[in-house]
Amino acid sequence: MQQMSSEWSFYHPVRVISIRLADYLASLTGKNILLVTTSGFTRRGLTGKILSWTAQNRLKIYDQISPNPDLDNLDLAAESLRGQTFDCILAIGGGSVIDAAKALSVSLPLSLKKPLSAILRDRQHADLSKRIPVIAVPTTAGTGSEVTQYATIWDLANGLKYSLAGEHIFPETAVLDSDLTLSLPSQETLYSGLDALSHALESLWNINSNPFSEIYAFSALNLACDNLPAVLAGPENCDARAGMQRASLFAGYAISITKTAIAHAISYPLTARLSIPHGLASGFTLATLIDMQRSSKSLPGHYFVLFDRIKALLLSFNLSCEMRRYATGAQIQDLLPEMFDPSRIKNYNCAADASLVAMILENSGCGSFSNLA
Amino acid sequence: MQQMSSEWSFYHPVRVISIRLADYLASLTGKNILLVTTSGFTRRGLTGKILSWTAQNRLKIYDQISPNPDLDNLDLAAESLRGQTFDCILAIGGGSVIDAAKALSVSLPLSLKKPLSAILRDRQHADLSKRIPVIAVPTTAGTGSEVTQYATIWDLANGLKYSLAGEHIFPETAVLDSDLTLSLPSQETLYSGLDALSHALESLWNINSNPFSEIYAFSALNLACDNLPAVLAGPENCDARAGMQRASLFAGYAISITKTAIAHAISYPLTARLSIPHGLASGFTLATLIDMQRSSKSLPGHYFVLFDRIKALLLSFNLSCEMRRYATGAQIQDLLPEMFDPSRIKNYNCAADASLVAMILENSGCGSFSNLA
Repeated sequence: MQQMSSEWSFYHPVRVISIRLADYLASLTGKNILLVTTSGFTRRGLTGKILSWTAQNRLKIYDQISPNPDLDNLDLAAESLRGQTFDCILAIGGGSVIDAAKALSVSLPLSLKKPLSAILRDRQHADLSKRIPVIAVPTTAGTGSEVTQYATIWDLANGLKYSLAGEHIFPETAVLDSDLTLSLPSQETLYSGLDALSHALESLWNINSNPFSEIYAFSALNLACDNLPAVLAGPENCDARAGMQRASLFAGYAISITKTAIAHAISYPLTARLSIPHGLASGFTLATLIDMQRSSKSLPGHYFVLFDRIKALLLSFNLSCEMRRYATGAQIQDLLPEMFDPSRIKNYNCAADASLVAMILENSGCGSFSNLA
Repeated sequence: MQQMSSEWSFYHPVRVISIRLADYLASLTGKNILLVTTSGFTRRGLTGKILSWTAQNRLKIYDQISPNPDLDNLDLAAESLRGQTFDCILAIGGGSVIDAAKALSVSLPLSLKKPLSAILRDRQHADLSKRIPVIAVPTTAGTGSEVTQYATIWDLANGLKYSLAGEHIFPETAVLDSDLTLSLPSQETLYSGLDALSHALESLWNINSNPFSEIYAFSALNLACDNLPAVLAGPENCDARAGMQRASLFAGYAISITKTAIAHAISYPLTARLSIPHGLASGFTLATLIDMQRSSKSLPGHYFVLFDRIKALLLSFNLSCEMRRYATGAQIQDLLPEMFDPSRIKNYNCAADASLVAMILENSGCGSFSNLA
């Protein structure tokens, strides 16, 4: 059975506040705020609301964040914002917005010309401690980015994915207002819910798991089991939305301790090459991985009471059919050699080689056999 | 049923490290360290060990902490240590040692003559932000002080109890080495275990409970249920000792969010006036309070699956007999008017008046009826 190391640590300085966003913003006065969000947010009239709620502050708006935020775009943003002083960055959106805000928070204070390119492409040393504090306000329920010390930044020009990581990347504050997730469309609700489930499970079949990650992961799984079917059946169910927001939060804590593992390693090329949404790409293998964990006896038997509930939930989503909307089995299988991101696969609690990953894809309905069938 | 407020927050910046103390201390170099501990620790040869493990640092020893640390003594200590510069305070001991270290960490940097007397007795304003970081190393499993922003300081000259509280009181680091608890005598093991149980339960029947305090409290209760009988039956059971250390840690997180409630309000005069050890004084009413919570239907029904296991455990300890070793029922009952510390009783999730407290004492085997019997 997986032995938990007796040496571990836990450090998590994010201030989490559950409050209506309007009330939180009304409590800020005299601040220079950079609002980071999407053009969709502005189009839906929400940036205007934020403006009225932050009347006691100066607000600069940057609403050009797109899904999978791009390094060069963020460096252009930094250039256009340079010379202005901000007390904090208010990031309102999904994981892409929050990750972009984290990148700007450490890159804006630097005097480098193209700071992210210098740090990530050229591996130039830079002092990230002079960061602008980020106030993260999630509008989806899945990424957990509001409480992690990671930011995923894409280098679209070169087909690469970078990760900013470290204690300076933690948001200062996470503001939870589950009403902001009420209008999330059904598919995004499912995919972000899968993201939360994959974070919680991946932190359990993980060599870095510790007593803190375990309690957060189990709390996330219990909350997701109880609330994901409810938000899908009734998108305006406020209590269930709050439950999923908490599931995502706790799953974020879990991966902030352990990082992710094999399901994420498998997912990255599927997102980068085939544009399969992250939550689906990291979620479609989970039911198979639960079965493999049972066989390997790597985890305590009592885990499987909850795992079996999760598996039934996952099977009810017909994720292999969802996958086929984006790619054929052959296209997926072709990417197998790229599914071994060493920084993720090494966290998995079992040995993983190409034949194992092939079997995972096949048992998840996306392998060679299912392709031929 | 108790409604959880939708407004809550969680902020917990303590760095928790599970590691052998010798290995942790070997990682510190070039520091000016103030070791705060007890004379018993020195007598048992442990201060000598610490000296050898911190050879790469300068160590000043203050080993005059006694149970229930006294304000005037701590001000004398501050006077004797004034003028020396410390990078950190290493607090090795139970709750009294860690609380004393917290008080010194904020009082030593002040230029006031008798700083704690000025702050606590005279309510003088003082800037506590220039504190010396505390590294808390618990040698008991119960107080949770290694992760709370509270320090209980006694004014023995005036029969009063003060609480230092606030974000500056959090230790910077908590170092968990459960081997340090292996030699804890049986009675202290039981009483500190009761302390952990009381923290976890008190944070559940609490108007300040929130999603974080709930998961920490439940994790603490599960760990205590599994491990307290085991450490009492086999004091050298390393795994069970580690389990109880974690129960205490998580219960500390729970009360750092909610503060304590009625069982603690009842306990304070019993400790201050009758010298009943804190863990016993806050633990002997818990089984009765579980029954009252069931009747009041203030908490979700599913809580009582675990509560019933806790109640059976508590009853197995015959705590009313333990209480009689320190005081008669009449002595306990006489203190009833003092059992209403407003800062604790207001946190309880049910209305509490004198007749309720009298009933709690009676049902816990320490009231008028049991006294007459």
